[in-house]
Parts: sequence; C-alpha cells; structure tokens
Amino acid sequence: MATSMFKLSSAIIHTSKNARCVVRLVNKCNISTTNVTARKERDTFGELDVPDDRLYGAQTVRSVMNFPIGGIEERMPYPVIVAFGILKKAAAKVNVEYGLDKKIADAIIQACDDVISGKLYREGHFPLVIWQTGSGTQSNMNANEVISNRAIQILGGTLGSKDPVHPNDHVNKSQSSNDTYPTAMHIAVAMELRDRLMPGLCALRDTLDAKAKAFDKIIKIGRTHLMDAVPLTLGQEFSGYVAQLSFGIERVCGVLPRLHLLALGGTAVGTGLNTRIGFAEKCAAEIASLTGIPFETAPNKFEALASHDTMVEVHGALNTIAVSLMKIANDIRFLASGPRCGLAELQLPENEPGSSIMPGKVNPTQCESLTMIAAQVMGNHVACTVGGSNGHFELNVFKPMIVANVLRSIRLIGDGCQAFNKNCAVGIQANEAQIAKIMRESLMLVTALNPHIGYDKAALIAKTAHKEGGTLKDTAIKLGILTAEQFDQWVRPEEMLGPK
Amino acid sequence: MATSMFKLSSAIIHTSKNARCVVRLVNKCNISTTNVTARKERDTFGELDVPDDRLYGAQTVRSVMNFPIGGIEERMPYPVIVAFGILKKAAAKVNVEYGLDKKIADAIIQACDDVISGKLYREGHFPLVIWQTGSGTQSNMNANEVISNRAIQILGGTLGSKDPVHPNDHVNKSQSSNDTYPTAMHIAVAMELRDRLMPGLCALRDTLDAKAKAFDKIIKIGRTHLMDAVPLTLGQEFSGYVAQLSFGIERVCGVLPRLHLLALGGTAVGTGLNTRIGFAEKCAAEIASLTGIPFETAPNKFEALASHDTMVEVHGALNTIAVSLMKIANDIRFLASGPRCGLAELQLPENEPGSSIMPGKVNPTQCESLTMIAAQVMGNHVACTVGGSNGHFELNVFKPMIVANVLRSIRLIGDGCQAFNKNCAVGIQANEAQIAKIMRESLMLVTALNPHIGYDKAALIAKTAHKEGGTLKDTAIKLGILTAEQFDQWVRPEEMLGPK
Amino acid sequence: MATSMFKLSSAIIHTSKNARCVVRLVNKCNISTTNVTARKERDTFGELDVPDDRLYGAQTVRSVMNFPIGGIEERMPYPVIVAFGILKKAAAKVNVEYGLDKKIADAIIQACDDVISGKLYREGHFPLVIWQTGSGTQSNMNANEVISNRAIQILGGTLGSKDPVHPNDHVNKSQSSNDTYPTAMHIAVAMELRDRLMPGLCALRDTLDAKAKAFDKIIKIGRTHLMDAVPLTLGQEFSGYVAQLSFGIERVCGVLPRLHLLALGGTAVGTGLNTRIGFAEKCAAEIASLTGIPFETAPNKFEALASHDTMVEVHGALNTIAVSLMKIANDIRFLASGPRCGLAELQLPENEPGSSIMPGKVNPTQCESLTMIAAQVMGNHVACTVGGSNGHFELNVFKPMIVANVLRSIRLIGDGCQAFNKNCAVGIQANEAQIAKIMRESLMLVTALNPHIGYDKAALIAKTAHKEGGTLKDTAIKLGILTAEQFDQWVRPEEMLGPK
Amino acid sequence: MATSMFKLSSAIIHTSKNARCVVRLVNKCNISTTNVTARKERDTFGELDVPDDRLYGAQTVRSVMNFPIGGIEERMPYPVIVAFGILKKAAAKVNVEYGLDKKIADAIIQACDDVISGKLYREGHFPLVIWQTGSGTQSNMNANEVISNRAIQILGGTLGSKDPVHPNDHVNKSQSSNDTYPTAMHIAVAMELRDRLMPGLCALRDTLDAKAKAFDKIIKIGRTHLMDAVPLTLGQEFSGYVAQLSFGIERVCGVLPRLHLLALGGTAVGTGLNTRIGFAEKCAAEIASLTGIPFETAPNKFEALASHDTMVEVHGALNTIAVSLMKIANDIRFLASGPRCGLAELQLPENEPGSSIMPGKVNPTQCESLTMIAAQVMGNHVACTVGGSNGHFELNVFKPMIVANVLRSIRLIGDGCQAFNKNCAVGIQANEAQIAKIMRESLMLVTALNPHIGYDKAALIAKTAHKEGGTLKDTAIKLGILTAEQFDQWVRPEEMLGPK
Repeated sequence: MATSMFKLSSAIIHTSKNARCVVRLVNKCNISTTNVTARKERDTFGELDVPDDRLYGAQTVRSVMNFPIGGIEERMPYPVIVAFGILKKAAAKVNVEYGLDKKIADAIIQACDDVISGKLYREGHFPLVIWQTGSGTQSNMNANEVISNRAIQILGGTLGSKDPVHPNDHVNKSQSSNDTYPTAMHIAVAMELRDRLMPGLCALRDTLDAKAKAFDKIIKIGRTHLMDAVPLTLGQEFSGYVAQLSFGIERVCGVLPRLHLLALGGTAVGTGLNTRIGFAEKCAAEIASLTGIPFETAPNKFEALASHDTMVEVHGALNTIAVSLMKIANDIRFLASGPRCGLAELQLPENEPGSSIMPGKVNPTQCESLTMIAAQVMGNHVACTVGGSNGHFELNVFKPMIVANVLRSIRLIGDGCQAFNKNCAVGIQANEAQIAKIMRESLMLVTALNPHIGYDKAALIAKTAHKEGGTLKDTAIKLGILTAEQFDQWVRPEEMLGPK
Repeated sequence: MATSMFKLSSAIIHTSKNARCVVRLVNKCNISTTNVTARKERDTFGELDVPDDRLYGAQTVRSVMNFPIGGIEERMPYPVIVAFGILKKAAAKVNVEYGLDKKIADAIIQACDDVISGKLYREGHFPLVIWQTGSGTQSNMNANEVISNRAIQILGGTLGSKDPVHPNDHVNKSQSSNDTYPTAMHIAVAMELRDRLMPGLCALRDTLDAKAKAFDKIIKIGRTHLMDAVPLTLGQEFSGYVAQLSFGIERVCGVLPRLHLLALGGTAVGTGLNTRIGFAEKCAAEIASLTGIPFETAPNKFEALASHDTMVEVHGALNTIAVSLMKIANDIRFLASGPRCGLAELQLPENEPGSSIMPGKVNPTQCESLTMIAAQVMGNHVACTVGGSNGHFELNVFKPMIVANVLRSIRLIGDGCQAFNKNCAVGIQANEAQIAKIMRESLMLVTALNPHIGYDKAALIAKTAHKEGGTLKDTAIKLGILTAEQFDQWVRPEEMLGPK
Repeated sequence: MATSMFKLSSAIIHTSKNARCVVRLVNKCNISTTNVTARKERDTFGELDVPDDRLYGAQTVRSVMNFPIGGIEERMPYPVIVAFGILKKAAAKVNVEYGLDKKIADAIIQACDDVISGKLYREGHFPLVIWQTGSGTQSNMNANEVISNRAIQILGGTLGSKDPVHPNDHVNKSQSSNDTYPTAMHIAVAMELRDRLMPGLCALRDTLDAKAKAFDKIIKIGRTHLMDAVPLTLGQEFSGYVAQLSFGIERVCGVLPRLHLLALGGTAVGTGLNTRIGFAEKCAAEIASLTGIPFETAPNKFEALASHDTMVEVHGALNTIAVSLMKIANDIRFLASGPRCGLAELQLPENEPGSSIMPGKVNPTQCESLTMIAAQVMGNHVACTVGGSNGHFELNVFKPMIVANVLRSIRLIGDGCQAFNKNCAVGIQANEAQIAKIMRESLMLVTALNPHIGYDKAALIAKTAHKEGGTLKDTAIKLGILTAEQFDQWVRPEEMLGPK
Repeated sequence: MATSMFKLSSAIIHTSKNARCVVRLVNKCNISTTNVTARKERDTFGELDVPDDRLYGAQTVRSVMNFPIGGIEERMPYPVIVAFGILKKAAAKVNVEYGLDKKIADAIIQACDDVISGKLYREGHFPLVIWQTGSGTQSNMNANEVISNRAIQILGGTLGSKDPVHPNDHVNKSQSSNDTYPTAMHIAVAMELRDRLMPGLCALRDTLDAKAKAFDKIIKIGRTHLMDAVPLTLGQEFSGYVAQLSFGIERVCGVLPRLHLLALGGTAVGTGLNTRIGFAEKCAAEIASLTGIPFETAPNKFEALASHDTMVEVHGALNTIAVSLMKIANDIRFLASGPRCGLAELQLPENEPGSSIMPGKVNPTQCESLTMIAAQVMGNHVACTVGGSNGHFELNVFKPMIVANVLRSIRLIGDGCQAFNKNCAVGIQANEAQIAKIMRESLMLVTALNPHIGYDKAALIAKTAHKEGGTLKDTAIKLGILTAEQFDQWVRPEEMLGPK
C-alpha cells in the first residue's frame, strides 16, 4: 500500500507540475540587482566581484551566493548590525592600549559610528540573511569588511586593498566570530529591551493604571467560568491587568544580570587564545560606557559560547509577557463586544471603518493585532528553545536564528504595545449604563439577602426569578417576601467589594 | 517583598533610562518617506492624504497609520498579494456573468495581472504589515483600492475618484474580506507548496537517492545510541534519508484535498449573504484554471471562515518535514566531523573559508542553515497552532499571522533545501579509507565468529581486544584461537547486511 | 555583579533549606514495596533479587534501580505493553515456520494472551517507567522476561531458570529491541486511534450533527471580530463544528498509510541481520490478522528505526484536532455564558453544583476539561517534535517519550470527547427566546432596508438607534421613514441566510 | 472531491471497526472497583452513594462520574493535595481568631496532618483527575470533604453527616475554590522546587564541578561547528556545564519573589467578599511558618485569580534548565561515543548490559533518559503557556492542567538529575590516552608555529599533512621546515589555553 500511495503522491505532484499553470510564484519578487561596476575583493578562497558601491568584501559576497534563502524580510536584524558597530568601536579603543595604531583605530571608530547611526545599513552594506553559518561568522566578517573598507575610505585608501586597515588584523583584532557574535547578541537584546520593549510595556501599564483609577467607582458584574458571579469594580478588574504588566517588567529586569554578561574575550573556544589579558574586561567596560548599560565580562566564557541559555531565559520572560497581553487584549475585546448582542461594557475607539452601514461596529482591531503578536511570540519562544538546546561542544551554532527570534519578539511586543496603547487603551471608555443595567439584573446579588431573610427564601427568590425571567427585586416583591425599600436597603453591590 | 522588589525593578529601569545612553536603537532604521505630492482619498471616516505615486487609498493609509509595527520585514507576504490578484481576476470574470460591465471587468482583470506579475508589489503599492486587523480586511481593501485605481488609470479616470471602477462595488463585488482573505490564504499556500516547497524537497530527495545508490557498496559501522554497532552500507544509511523525504512529500500531498477548498462565496459570516448562487463554484473553477491547481468551493463555509484547521494541518506536515531535515542535516554534519578528531566518514564541499590557517576545516554551514530553519519551522508551527485555536464564533481573527507563518515555513524549507542541495548534498563524498578503517577496528564484528568458535571464545577475544586496545584479528591470533586466514574468511562485514 | 548574584541565590537556597521546614515533599508518596520472598535472576551483569511474585527478571530490576524517576504516573503506557504481547505472539507463530519448537511457541503464545488481556499488567509485572533507555530496550526485555517466565510456569518449569523458554533465544527470536519497540509503538498507536480516539471523536461529531439539524430553523445574530454581524442559523453555526470534526477524522485517516508500516525485521540497525528472509512480512501479516488493522512491513527499515517522523505526523493530526476542539468548546461556553450578564444563547446541562445559592450558575466544566486537554495536546506535540528531531545515525533514542505523548494525547482526546459528549453536548439546548431577542435588537438588520429606502436613510435609522439606544423598528417609525408594517415586511432575517 | 474523500475516510474507519478485531484496547486496564458497602452523601444536587471506606463526599463522587478521563496516571498531582492540607491547616488556625470553635479547629488541624503526611492520599481518598473543572473547585471540595469527614471521625461523629464539622462552613471558611486552588498551586510548586528540583540540580552541578576540577590538566581538542578547533582542557569544557547549571539555579531563585505571593483572601473574584480583614495576611504567615518558605499575601488578588503568569514564568525557568540539560547530556554522550568508532574521550559507567557480546558497548542510557525529560519539559512549557494565555475575566480556568505540567516538569528534572548524577555523572572518567592521541593529531596545532616560521610555511605543513594523512610533526620534518626538537618546543597545547 505504501508504495502505491507514494506513486499516487508522485503522480499528483507530477500532474500539478505539468498542468497548464498560468501563474507561478517562484522567484517572482526578488530584489533586482542594479547594474553597477565591480571591483575585485579576495579571501582565502580567491577573488570575487563586488559592486563598486558596496563596502563589503569577498566573504560577504560568498555568503550571499551560498545562502539565497528568503527575501529581504530574512535579513540579519538591524539591532545586531548596530551592536557590531558598538562592539568593534569598543574593541578598537581598547586595542590602542594593546598596540593598535591610533590613526587606524580612529578611522575604525569613525567607520563604526556610521554603522551605529544606521547609515551603512540603510545604504545596503549589510545584505546577509539569518540563514547562514550558525556561528554568525559571516555577519562578523561582513562587519569587519564594511568597517575596514569604510576606514580605508576615510584614510584615503583603495577599497578592497585591506590597506591600511585590515578586516581581520585590525577590525577583528583579539576577537573571533565565536565571541563577537554572542557579544553582539547580548548588546542588541539588552538595548532593544530598554529602548523598544520597556517603553511600550510601561506606556501601556501606565495607561491601564490610569484607567483602573478612573473606573474605580464603576461597579460591575464579576465573571468566573464566564458565568455571572459577584460584583467588583471595573477599576479592580483593570488593576489586575496593571499587576500583570508590572510583574512583566519585573520579569524582564530579573533576567538582566545574566544578559549583561559578555562573551568577548573567549575567542574561538572560550579559552581566550590570541587575545590579551584584560582585553575582555576593558571591552565590556567600554561597551557599558557606550550604551549606558552595565555590561560585564562573562565569568565563564565556555558557557557563553557553547550555550545561549540566557537568550532562552530572556525569551521566557517575553513569552510570559505575551501570555499577559493575550489575556488583557482578550478581556478587553470581549468586554467591548456588541454593540447590542455582546457584553458591551466597554467602548473602544473607532480607528477605521468597521462596516459601511452599521454604526457602532467598531472592530477591536488593535486587540487582534496584539493577540496575533502574542501567538507569534509563543511560537518564536519554541524556535529559540529548540535552537538553544542543540548546541554541541564548544559552540552553539543556532546563533542567528536565536537572536532573530528574541529581537523580533521584543520589537513586536514593543511596537504592538505602543500601537495598542495609543490607538485603543487610552481611548477605552466604560459604558456605564450597560454595566449598571446588567449588574443589577444579576441573580448573584441575592447573596446579600441571606443574613436578612435566610438562605431558603433567598434561594426561592433567585430560582423563581431565573425561571420566570424577572428581576430579583420584582420577584421578591411579587412573592411577598420583602418590600422594595427593604430590597434597596439590603441589596447593595457597593458593599460586596472587599473583606469585612 | 513584592512591592519593594517592584520598586527596585522600576528603579533599575529608571536608572538605565536616565543614564547617559550614547546609543539608542529606537526608530533608527525606519524607511524614510520621500516627499511627494499627495491627493485626497476618502473612506467612510473621511479624507486622507495619499502620495500621488501610490495606487492605494484611504483604508490602506489608515492601516499604515494605526499599525506602525515592525519594519519592512513584517509586510504581508508577497504570495498573499499575488493570490489576491488571482482571486480578484477570477471574481471579475465571473461577475460579468452576474451583470458586471464588461469594460470595467476587463480593466480590473488587466489591473489584476499587474498584481499577479509582482509589478505593483515591487512598486510599493502594498505597504501593510501582518499586524493589522485579524481578518485581513485591510489587505483585502488594499487590494481593492490598488486594483480599482489601476483600472481607473487604464480607463483614463482620476485616481481616488472611485469612478468608473469602485473598490467595493466592482472589485469586491459579491465578496467580503471574511471570505476573500481565507481564500487568498489557501491559494497562496497551495501555490507556494507546489512552486517553492516541492521543488526544493524533491531536488534534495533525488540527490540523496543518487548518493544512496552511489554509496551502495561502501560498508560502514552502524551506530545505535551513538555507540558502535553492526555494519550497514553508507547507501543503506542514505536510503533512510530518502525514505524520510519521500514520506514528507506524501505528507504534503495528503493535506491537499482540504487545502484546495476555498471559502469564497461565504461572504461575511459563511451564509453567502449578498453573493449569488453559483458564484462560489464558478470562482473556484476560474481560480483552478488560472493556477492549474484543482481548487473547489468549500462544502461548509462556516468552517472555512471560523477556523483555519487546514492551515494548522498543513503546518503539521511542514513541522514533520522540519523534523526529518533536522535529523538528516545533523547526521551529515556529525558524519563529516573532523577532519582528524571526529568521525570523518563524509567530506562536504568547501564553500567558504572555514579557517585561514587550517586546511580541512570545512564548517558544515549548509547543515547549520538547514537546522536553524528546522528550529524556526517548529516555532512557527506553535504560533500557527495558537492562532488556529483562538478563533471565536463566525470568524477566526488570527488570519494574517497564521498564513504568514505557513508561508514563511514553506519558503524557508524550499529555499533551504535548494541551497543545501546545491551547495552541500550534491558534493558529499565518502571518505572510504576512514570508513573502512574504523569499521574494521570495530569490536562488534566479533559477532561473526560465534557460529565458528562459540560465544565464549568470541567474547574472550573481544574483551581482550577492548582491554588491551588491539584489533580483533591481532588479538585472536595472539590468543591462539584462530589464524589470520580463518579470521579473514569468517569475519566478513559484507555478509552482515541483511537477513538470511 | 553576576558572582554576587550567584552568592545571593545560593544563600537564598541555603537559608530555605536550613529553615525549620515542618513540611517537606520529597519521597513522601512512593509506593511501598511489600515484603515478599525473593528469587535470584541473572543477566550478563550478574545476579539480582527478584520478588517471587513477579515474573520479570534481572534486566527489569536493573532498570527499576537505575531510573527511579517519577511515580506510578510515569509508567510505560499500557497500550505499549499490550502491543508487545501482540508482537511477541505473532513472532512466536511465525518462528515456528523457522524452526521454533511448537511446544515452546504455544506456551509463549498463551503467555502473550495474558499480556494482551491486561492480566499481567494489572498484576504488576510491568513496572518500568518511560524514562529509561531511549530505545525502549528495557521494556522489550521486560516483555521477554515476563513472557518467558509465564511460559515456563505454563510448562511447569522454574521461574528464572530460562528453561525451557529463554527470554532472548525464544521470545526475542529474530528480533532486536531496536525493531520491536518501534513496532510496538505503531501497533499501540494504531489501535488506540481506532479504539479510543475515533469512537470519541465520532460520537461528538454525530451529536453536534444532530444538534445542527435540530437548530436548523433558529435564526441568530452572527458575530465576527466578536461584534454583531449579519444573521445565520444556530444550525449553520453548529454545522461548522461538524465540518471541523469530520475533517479531523479525515486527517487521522490520512496518516494511517504510514502508521501501518512496521519496523519489525530491521533488527539492530535496519539491515535485518540475524533475522530470516520473509520473517518481517509474515509477522506483519500476523499482526494485521490479530488486530484487524492492515499492517505491512515497512519498505525502508533504516527510516523506521532511525526516525519517528510518522509519530510526529500522527501527533500533527492530533494537534489539529486539539485546535478544533478548543474552538468548539470555547464557542459553546461563550454562547452559554450568563445567565443574565452573558450571551446566554445556549443552555448547558447542569452536572454538578455551580453555586449553592445562585440557580442558573451552570459552570461549563466539560468545556473547561476539554480545553485543558487541547492545551495539553499542543504541548505534547512539541515534546514529540523535539524528540523526533533528535535521532542520530541508525537509531532515534527518544522512543518511549515520543510514544507516551502520542498515546496520552489520543487517550485524553478520546476520553475527553466522550465525557464532553455525554455530559454536555447531548444536553445542549438553545435559549430561543434570548436568541430571538438579541437578534431582533441587532442594528445589523438595517442592511435589509437598503434596497427599499436607500443607503442614506438606512444609515440614519441605524445611527439614530445606536445613539439613542432604541430598536431599529421604533427608530424608523419615529423618524417617519417607514411604517411598522413595512419594517416587518422588509426586515426579515430568514431571508438573509444564503446567496440569492 | 472533499465529499468523496470523506466518504472514503468514513469507509476506512467503518471497515476497520467491523473487521474481526481480535484485540481491542478500550477500557482494558481500568482499576477495578472493589465491592464495599456504601453510605449516602449529599450535595445541593441530591444524594449519592459513597463507598464506606472512603472519606470523600458527594461532590467528589460527582466529579469521578463526570470526568472518566485517563487512568491513574492522570490524577491530581500529589503535591497539590499536600498543599491543600497545609492551606486548610493554616486557615483553621487563623479562623479560630475569627470565631471558629477551637475544638473543631483542632480536629480539622489533625485531619490536615493526615493529608500532609500523605496517609489519606495513599489510602485513596483523593481520586480526582486533572481533567475536571478548570478552577480546581472539585479538588478543593475533595479536600474539604475528606478533611471534614476525617475530623468528624476524630470527634466521634458520623461520616457524611457534616456534623460537627462541615466541609464548607468550617473547612472552607473564609475561602473559595477560586482563591484556595491557586494558593495550593503556589505552595506545591514552591515546595517541589525546593525539595525536588534544587537537590537534583545542585547535586549534579556539584558533581560536574568536581569533575571540572579533576579534569583540569587534561588538554583536549576543542570542537566548533563539530570540527576540530584549538585546544582547551576537559576541565574547562566541564566548567561550562557547571556555569549553565549554576545559572539555572539563579534562574529559579529569580522567580521566587512572585511565586511566594498567595491568592488566599481573594475568594470568588478577587475582592475578598465573605472573608475577613487580616485573614489573607495571617494565613500567608501561617503557611510560611508551616513550610519554611517566605510566603506573603499577593498585593493584587485579581491578578492572582485571573492569570497564572507566574506559573508560566516558573516554567520558563524550567524550560531553560531543560535546554541546559539537553546540551550537557548530548555533549557527554557524544564525547563517550565509541568505543572504537566514535570520539571516545569519556567513559561512562556501565549500568546495564549494552550488548551480550560486545564489551565496551555501554549505552549512554542516563543521557537518553535525561534528554527525553528535557524534550518533555519543553512540551509541558507550551501546554502551560497556552493554558496561561486563555484565562478570561476574573478567573483562569486552566488551573489543574497548568500546575500539573509545572509539577511534572519539576519532578522529572529533579529525579532525572538525581538518577543521572548517581548513575552516570559521578562515574564519568576521562579516556586520557585517546584524548591526548587525537589532540596531538589535530592539524589545528599548526597555529602555534605562525610566530616562528610564518604563516605561509605553517600553512604548507598543515595542507600537506591533511593531503597525505600525516602528522604535523612528521610532515614538518619531512618538508625540512623544522626539526623534531623545534616542533616539540614550539607546538605546546598547554600554552594555548588562555589569553596572554
């Protein structure tokens, strides 16, 4: 059977491949290469043509040729490139202390500033994709090539001549891909946590906190198991969201001590062969100074090269935040559901046409975007975990994939929180009339009558009201158990909001 | 404690935010908007400026404004845009049968061809990101706006006038975002499976199959639990990889029947309100004709809008393929490890400098790229699963995230297999000397002596050899148990390769 | 900082370990071993005591000693044990054709029947846990030991004597752990799919199908983005669930061709060394006959030992079903939310006290159980995927973990669907009054007026109603746009349920 | 096609269901219920039979009847039961301050001690499974029923009479399932982290640390990308593992501040309705005293009921530890691969027969068990994440599933590390001869010659040696580049182990 099944499968593929396929997708949208003149660059494998308007060299070109995987969306994340700029700048500064020519160092530093500012990235000098060698060697060499060529330009030399600034001997001095790439990972992630994630997360928390205070007096029905339960205030409900996000911020802070440890100084296998005593510590201090983040040299470089547990840990914090955001965004869109046939306790700002004919159909699009982001982050976490678990011996070679997932999750959460905050959270309004109406209708309020009329009579009122569809008050009066005045005096949701 | 902990956390953030941060990452690399003149476009929310050189309209602009999440790498995947072109072309053709003016239809069809060819995507008319409304409404409107404006151009009208071609009344006729977007998902995924995944997967399988045949006579040590075991041929080992990939192809074929079902005709909630009897079937036939893929209209439109189980199922097949590729690429790089201190049974092609000083240090970079891809696909699968499980009532609103993950996984596997095939698999060579050498050294071959000298003497030979580090043959002779001739006659790995 | 951090951490642990810990959990709940007399059993490592009332031997005892991991809940799943009984019975039958003494074979077969019936499992002869050697060797030896000792009992021999029935020479004849364990995996999973998953899934589908038919005339508000949309029937909504489950059944069927391929005959590394030509095919046929499932011998045994892609694929189908069940159970509990402050369109059977005082508080506990199961299955899928991807060379050594997850997911889904079906689905009732009430209140029905009074007037009615909180009908009359009769004639939800 | 496909699928199922299925698995291995006399117990739904030898009541029986899902392996984890004992004991103590009769409280406390000791669990009074109501209400009631009946026994009353000790009025006083179950989750997890995870993790770290020191002088080849690289010591390699586990311990410590916050006092929706001011704080202090763990009352009870982010966070730490263990166990088994055809740098203790004929075939079974555990933990993490993200409004109803996964992961890691430590890690030995041999053969050592003879001549030596298969030394001498003495003097791996 299996064999015939396979033949069938092959036939299906074959048929579909031979069918008149008017439309095919492959290679439809590659970025066209503009025709420019080329110069020769060489590495130990020989010479290669490099476009004259590009600063990279032979090893970068070789990677482009060998890994034509995905389009522009698969490029090495921008924060990694910036981190390389910072790292190479710090190394150049420190290397002066170990004998690097000051003029060369200054040119390298100036070139690094053009990396850090994003200029060289925007101009297309960093074309490599994530899907390259798992050590990120090619991106380290891309940085070395671009920085050395830019420094050569600054010093008036010839591109590709490796003179007077050599990509390996000068820019990569005392370094190895195996320690620079993980260092760049930590720098990039730490900066993005601070500059991208935290602002978004804090902004959203602050807005929800303001809402919690503004909604402090609005008493509403509580829901457990999705079923009507005892009341709480809308402010109390929102305070739970605030607590989730505050803890989320704590969680990120909790991982920083390990994230701030840098692999630099370990070189090829963690021993620090070919580097100098003190280089690691001085570079870490310089990077700390450049970024304002308290980086230190990692106490154990073998761990720092061979594992990326800390990346997995950081993503664990992001995963937890995604879980929080999924809950919060889900609650908000369910509470805003309607306008007539849902819960309708909240009103969300209307950002785009929901429907051309139905006023009030405000789709909770910001909630949708945020929950999609949450799902993506949960997936990215698994990719990160699988990559982190598959290192071998002295080097984990899932580095670019791991850092790309961490950075993407950070950016999506950060940007997503900002968009959600600005376009949804700040504009959330309570539909007080509806909240009060359904809270009053809730049969759960009968609980308040127990001390006054006893459990049995209270239950009779509730059961009758449920069966006949009446309100508790009407039913109680109709059954002759209590008066309207008594009901109003005893059934007071505002007294059900805390312990006695 | 918790409170003080939180204060501490806040302090940490605060401090780091106030520190002299020479370098910050946020908003460093946004694509600068070029200054062009603008025209007014309007939707039901009012007027908005649209760059004159863009064909999209107000709803697209609104989405750009409301969802500034991620950079260019987060754009709606290109195959979805092409699928919209195909869908809108098919709908226009069919709508003529239901009264759409032939001239308008022809203009729409011509505009769709510019979408299908990728021209309008490359020119920047589809700027939206994945992280928008979860129904993909905004991308459907983006398509409607661009196609209608392009059709207006063709017919000599004024951009933004919606005359004579209206984005809703004509391009979206008999459709809703809720049925077009899932239809585009199925079209895009089916095409990419055929055009991107299958060629890569088949090419790699065919190469490995050729290797299995070429290595048919090379007898090598088998390894179970990573430990030396009885022999097999290198060809047999590779035949296992071929079987994995062949089954992978079967797995993809197995999901196609459900993937080929299209939601179109369900409109807003699955009932087909506002569409016409026969429209769904005719459109599916037209799409089948345009693509060469046997699409049909889905028998149940409620399922087709409210769930994306089929996307989860498709990704399940991709996940299984990722598992296969991880195993294959891992085996190959372990078998090629060395050159001196590893297994060294295989030699991989040398694609780039592994090390400037050590000849033979060929890093298995293609294996690394492929295993990183496998890890990513496993993560994408979880994102897809989480999104698929969170639909509610008549609509799943994780659509763009789901399809983006499926398409990314397809592309990464397809491209990754092609690169791996071309730059690694075709060039794999057996290191026959090493294979023979270590196979001969294996103590496991002693098994062959059991029938001739009995278990006890065989075990004695093996134990002595292990203890003293000698070969089986030398040890056997030294112990006086058998002669060199007997050993050579009886210990024949080539007779240990199958059942008797 | 890192160092001091670590010291702090250590201090925390230390403090907590030294604190007066009145209560500690470790080793509190191990199953006490009853004192029984012991016999000696031996393997190649020497002799060990085995309780006299146990049929297993030295290798089983050794595994118990070496892997004290988890409690009784971590035992090798029961279906694997049964599958070993079937496999060993089939092998004994076939081995007679290859020279096994008929009397010994008959005793083995009778012993196997005691395994298949569950008798020997219930009596505690299979104590091993999942967390043992990754090839499952120890469970294969457990089966060999128990079956040979039971056969020895039947033939009147001495337990532990290995005479006249030897665990290796007779029970394991022509087999290896490396091919028996994966064979048992496929047998167990195929049987559980048929006997556990399918009945549950089919029962639930049939019930939902009956509900879909019963609810065929109940028109209700549709909801997209959780917001009010155009109407559909409750039957149509349920038909979507039916389609999901029917597809789920198809998905399982789609993986069977590969699941029905058996590894038996591959022995240690897939070559079939030490087995006989024809043994594999005859055993597969015998197993097919014993189980009623069309098993065949795997065409490639190398794949069958070294990978478990098919297990990952099977779990992919289970994962998709989990996604479906999550959606269905979520919808049902949201639709049943209330009774006063939720959607309240459905009423679920009351199975246990929801609250002692609030009638109508029926918690959707069956939905909760089923959605928890769905989440667990999604997690199990990842475990299975990770294990499947980590095989090396000739053997994947994550076998027990992989099959345990597949079997657990099958059982949870199967049992969960049965419980959900019986205790929830069959008793679901439509709250027709509420459904009609909120559907009538929906502003979305204004769509129906467009052809009669034009878009502008229709929009005016809807906007006014939304603003003032009135019904469409009252508002339309109040605005003088149409009469009550006209409204009733034109606004007919029953005409909005399909294409024209 | 889809329809016919479905018919086919149905046919397949049907056929297989009707086939003569000699063996079927369903319901084969349920625990038989022994026949005992029964008493009546009642809840608000009415009376039910309860076996006379069981202390639980009607609500427990109802749950058993409604959720027949899985076998004994699916029971509510034992640590949760113990945690309930602790919680109820603490509450009884505190309730005396709020008016609970001292005699009743003492009886409850004594009954709780029988829960805490495991006695009542072992006797079968806690039969419920994980797959029940998502709030864990039924397990809270199980605890209330068992404790009250046990207290009634102690006070000489009649089982099931609820007099003089009432399960709700006394044992559950001032509590709700919604705050007790999450409290029990935190207690159980915190205790298991301390008593199960930490001892295992610390023991393994300490052993590896001892190995790192013992192997301090053994110089070996480093491997990056699996390829030969520059040397390091075996001790350095192991120090990386130690760092991973030390960080793992830090990671667990990092989550404790949030884990130590208890939900108790929130009652039904987080407001604390029906509880007393001060009850929450006093209970937390009492629980801290009973356990020796610094528990506090949660500052925000709404978060504590509605989300389980902290469980997701805790599991994130476990996930990271799993990643570390996968790396370590993988390295160890690869380094121990052989004995002849692998790397063979390490020798692992032989715990069970690897093969009856091949001495030295020591399968790395402890590594296999540990890596299977790592994979399981990664899967459990996803289950936990999905459950954590799906809470709604005032209550997350994936509680039992979430805590079951966290506890299972803790136990598997804890027990797995203990077994691995005892049966593998402590017995790891370095194969110094092999390590020295292959290190000396490595071509990478040529690096050391660069300063003495220049890059070109060094490369010539290496390339020639690689091509001809010779050693560096022999090749260098043969090429006449240097003498044996020079080689020995300059090529000194022991000088390549750190920065200069």
